[in-house]
Amino acid sequence: MRPLILITNDDGVAAKGLATLEAVACEFGDVVVMAPGTNASGKGMSLTTERPLRAKEVRQGEGISVYACDGTPVDCVKLAVEHFCPRKPDLVLSGINHGSNSSINVLYSGTMGAVIEASVMGFSAIGFSLLNHNPEADFSACVPYVRHIVGRVLEHGLPADVSLNVNIPRMAEGEIKGLRVCQEAKALWTDSFEKRIDPIGRPYYWLTGKFVCNDPPAQSDETALKEGYVSVVPIHADYTHYGAIEQVNNILQ
Amino acid sequence: MRPLILITNDDGVAAKGLATLEAVACEFGDVVVMAPGTNASGKGMSLTTERPLRAKEVRQGEGISVYACDGTPVDCVKLAVEHFCPRKPDLVLSGINHGSNSSINVLYSGTMGAVIEASVMGFSAIGFSLLNHNPEADFSACVPYVRHIVGRVLEHGLPADVSLNVNIPRMAEGEIKGLRVCQEAKALWTDSFEKRIDPIGRPYYWLTGKFVCNDPPAQSDETALKEGYVSVVPIHADYTHYGAIEQVNNILQ
Repeated sequence: MRPLILITNDDGVAAKGLATLEAVACEFGDVVVMAPGTNASGKGMSLTTERPLRAKEVRQGEGISVYACDGTPVDCVKLAVEHFCPRKPDLVLSGINHGSNSSINVLYSGTMGAVIEASVMGFSAIGFSLLNHNPEADFSACVPYVRHIVGRVLEHGLPADVSLNVNIPRMAEGEIKGLRVCQEAKALWTDSFEKRIDPIGRPYYWLTGKFVCNDPPAQSDETALKEGYVSVVPIHADYTHYGAIEQVNNILQ
Repeated sequence: MRPLILITNDDGVAAKGLATLEAVACEFGDVVVMAPGTNASGKGMSLTTERPLRAKEVRQGEGISVYACDGTPVDCVKLAVEHFCPRKPDLVLSGINHGSNSSINVLYSGTMGAVIEASVMGFSAIGFSLLNHNPEADFSACVPYVRHIVGRVLEHGLPADVSLNVNIPRMAEGEIKGLRVCQEAKALWTDSFEKRIDPIGRPYYWLTGKFVCNDPPAQSDETALKEGYVSVVPIHADYTHYGAIEQVNNILQ
């Protein structure tokens, strides 16, 4: 039996990056797509608790079924595995995201929230992102890297509880120097909200912000991307700072 | 000048757990509360990108200002620090959550999303949760532990980039055995969605689920809570699995 590959994203079922990922996945196995019907960027690991979900079939083809759901990317993974996949997926893919999910962007990303969820559920999972927010972005340089990584992971598996956060620089295929396995760079977003005044004189606040990442370490994803490499960060669903346990114990006792 | 303490939560500005946390914080410093106007549980690190935010003053008192916002807990922290706090906060608190945020629940929690956000912004931050979902839960047993931990953190600080995920068992004060600094237990939620049929015959899906945590390690938060201890997990805004970098490199090269 061919491997079953479940795909989602956060840019929505009509996104160009999703279509690119679908096309590559179909080379390797049967594909189920369950993606948000509309944009769900910045939803992190958000769940939909206040209302029930709906899902509808968008398309059926040879070895591929595509559904749209009105929930978050995490909802999509849970719902697809339980109610829409004909068998347990062998691999869960998310993306290709329109825009970076490197560094701390992984925390806010719906695309990567879906990957973490799949990992919690015990599946091998990979999130792909291109450093280009444009809805019409050219994903062609991503294809050989997506193909290589998906092929290797299907063949060799991933270490237990580990999933991958893959970011691809905005470059022509020939300019990309290769891939580098690395760690998440520390960063933050500043100037988060722009205050405006509505016609009645009341304030409102638009999310905006500037990404600040000063002196990322050599072994970080930000450095890899700046130097022209595809960055691959092994991630897990664990926020524990193991190195701080003893120090915190001393502070609190 | 008294320390400034910023508080948020995900159960909403009217929650009993928030009132308990406010009361303890006021013993230590000036307090700004910016909390969601309505329930924002399960929002993780979700950001509001599709519409602007509003915030309104709920209450002003001696050394305390309370605001409600129509965004997520992460939005609350960003907005409060930039536009509502009179100076940079010395400490950010979140909770007291009605219900557990131990183990992988930390990933989905809006309460803990706010803590991670505060940590990214460079603030000391602590999230508190009581293992009782009831809106009328009795928070009195939490008070001495919240007071102790807030006092120690204000006095000694926290290690760089570290924040705390504190969970309190559902027990009378005298029955709680103390606190234990520990790590996040591995777990998952199964049976996530209940399928129902609407009056027109169309399916819809309610989020539900069963928390499954088999054989948590002795040094984990789940074990600490089961044994009657307050669990304290030092966390950081980093999903990197450092131990897997070399192995993933071997798989992909």
